[in-house]
Amino acid sequence: MAAMDEKLSSGNRGNPIRCRAAVSRKPGEPLVIEEIIVAPPMPHEVRVRIVYTSLCHSDITFWKMKDFPAVFPRILGHEAIGVVESVGEEVTEVAEGDTVIPTLISECGECVDCRSTKSNLCSKLPFKQISPFMPRHETSRFTDLNGEVIYHFLSVSSFSEYTVVDIAHLTKIDSSIPIFKAAGLLGCGVSTGVGAAWRTANVEPGSTVAIFGLGSIGLAVAEGARLCGATRIIGVDVNQDKFEIGKKFGVTDFINPANCENKSVTELMIEMTKGGADYCFECVGNSSLVQQAYACCRKGWGKAIVLGVDQPGSQLTLPSYDVLHKGKTLMGSFFGGLKPKSDIPVLLNRYINKELQLDEFVTHEMTFEDINKAFDLLIEGKCLRCVICMNTVG
Amino acid sequence: MAAMDEKLSSGNRGNPIRCRAAVSRKPGEPLVIEEIIVAPPMPHEVRVRIVYTSLCHSDITFWKMKDFPAVFPRILGHEAIGVVESVGEEVTEVAEGDTVIPTLISECGECVDCRSTKSNLCSKLPFKQISPFMPRHETSRFTDLNGEVIYHFLSVSSFSEYTVVDIAHLTKIDSSIPIFKAAGLLGCGVSTGVGAAWRTANVEPGSTVAIFGLGSIGLAVAEGARLCGATRIIGVDVNQDKFEIGKKFGVTDFINPANCENKSVTELMIEMTKGGADYCFECVGNSSLVQQAYACCRKGWGKAIVLGVDQPGSQLTLPSYDVLHKGKTLMGSFFGGLKPKSDIPVLLNRYINKELQLDEFVTHEMTFEDINKAFDLLIEGKCLRCVICMNTVG
Repeated sequence: MAAMDEKLSSGNRGNPIRCRAAVSRKPGEPLVIEEIIVAPPMPHEVRVRIVYTSLCHSDITFWKMKDFPAVFPRILGHEAIGVVESVGEEVTEVAEGDTVIPTLISECGECVDCRSTKSNLCSKLPFKQISPFMPRHETSRFTDLNGEVIYHFLSVSSFSEYTVVDIAHLTKIDSSIPIFKAAGLLGCGVSTGVGAAWRTANVEPGSTVAIFGLGSIGLAVAEGARLCGATRIIGVDVNQDKFEIGKKFGVTDFINPANCENKSVTELMIEMTKGGADYCFECVGNSSLVQQAYACCRKGWGKAIVLGVDQPGSQLTLPSYDVLHKGKTLMGSFFGGLKPKSDIPVLLNRYINKELQLDEFVTHEMTFEDINKAFDLLIEGKCLRCVICMNTVG
Repeated sequence: MAAMDEKLSSGNRGNPIRCRAAVSRKPGEPLVIEEIIVAPPMPHEVRVRIVYTSLCHSDITFWKMKDFPAVFPRILGHEAIGVVESVGEEVTEVAEGDTVIPTLISECGECVDCRSTKSNLCSKLPFKQISPFMPRHETSRFTDLNGEVIYHFLSVSSFSEYTVVDIAHLTKIDSSIPIFKAAGLLGCGVSTGVGAAWRTANVEPGSTVAIFGLGSIGLAVAEGARLCGATRIIGVDVNQDKFEIGKKFGVTDFINPANCENKSVTELMIEMTKGGADYCFECVGNSSLVQQAYACCRKGWGKAIVLGVDQPGSQLTLPSYDVLHKGKTLMGSFFGGLKPKSDIPVLLNRYINKELQLDEFVTHEMTFEDINKAFDLLIEGKCLRCVICMNTVG
């Protein structure tokens, strides 16, 4: 069914679609590929046929999680590209057949935040990490064949042949651009990293950047810093292989905390940079690493930027003396500080112009049926992004 | 001796000066006004006759402190204006008779930080809160009549008729501007507060500002925010009288944490500002207040700026989730982010042009002999700034 083309699928407009989804039924257990029912979109909603999706660490976090805010059964996945199958009432921004990238954050275009150049945190449909429903109507569009509700994830739920996404969470892609397998990465990981360097930190040409954690997000920060003209990009990772991988994305120096001999990472970084890096990005989600990133910032102007998602309820501690006396800044970067509808097309153009590297993040490809193998690869740290091709299942 | 004019005092050039100083001999005990010997300035140093000095909370903190980094006997005081008595070798920037304002931070004008527009933290003579000596030569210029060394404080030590200050810590004032009693306030408190709004936070016209703690620093933040065009300035203080005082400096609204009924300050602030203030300044030096200030920031762009000096070794804790997801910024503001030699003349000109209020901060004046009464007033919260007129002591 997923292989049917748009003309055929448009026949379902207004009706439920029966299709296959990878359902997370129990914490940490393999996803179950099963047939589900996807209700038609309600007003301001769009039903999307997913073409490519990929895995991100937040999928793993919520898949493993045993207690609240975890809910089951759920359709995970939030990094994807797809095609509009049908639209609900009030939707004028996209039409059937349009290429779209869903995003976990919204851009209504009307609220104070969307109208401000300083914020990317839409107030009309604010990000709710724990919500298991559609953002506007607070209900689910998914049921299993027994009629049981299946929950949504981060307003996207892309591990399904069809999903429903609020129009505020969809970015329309120029129809002249063919769908390619890495494009979905602009829906989360790459945009988050590149945006953190570009929009949140505003990395200046000639500056020195330190990146703690060279997973896909950290490497995307390197890519963003490279595009901003940083001349020195220092990666910090316990996996020595990440240096060779990092070089492709502009990493010029590497610190392996396991090989620092008698020095701490902070001491080594201060020494290497003669006082600290201009920008330090924490891409792991560990409060002690944020402390380290803050300590590694150059006094006077250093910025520590937090991208990593820490455990719920965790606290971040900094020395008061340094906060007051060192002239440093602590910032968070959620979705790279990007407004999806405004900024994803900009990044896509930089890819088309061969400036931004995207394909290089895709280390593996799989069929939908092998999705559990993609989970294994990411957990084992053996891949950057594993792209799942939905339309090969049919 | 202090009353002697510059022509007479210049006769001391190159020789020790015997004069009166208020010496802090034991923690928390009244300063002892006694005769001391002030050595001539070494290279790059300037001997200054203090005309007016005032008290700041850091004086109280180090006066009370029993253990390291407190040292005794010491000459406190770091907010003052004076006249150059003589200069050491290599000093060309000022000459005998010039009016100068000493500052606890330096501006060498040559290091990477001084040449950058982004930093005010001179690398050549970095701020050392705990140093009891002259910053460049690491020795004292003060001895008592028994020949015992008396220690310096924050590179200024203005509670003395004469002191020695490194040229990097002195700002020369245009000779056409007469010395007035509030001018010394630009040496610390007023510059710190006004600068925090102006340089560190860069408060935008029309914005909403919250200030936690309406002492002199907090009121100077209000004054700075008012000058930057903030339309709403909300003061938070447990002393209800501070609202009337605050109004003079632009405070438009007031929250007394003791009178919030069933709401927390944060709830009330979020309610009053419909989502949080654009800028929140912590001017007390209390990590739980920094938390509150951070929580009161508007999502998307709110900035929390720390000015208060917390206890040594204290830690500041923030919720990791908010740091990542709320788009807020945490900054410290040391000396208001100002470069003294560059920015104090700008503020002085704004005073001359009747834009910046300075005299309004001076609530009390005293003779040097009454300096211990000034300590009492500040400890009891009964004054903003108490100016001590040194030249009334003969």
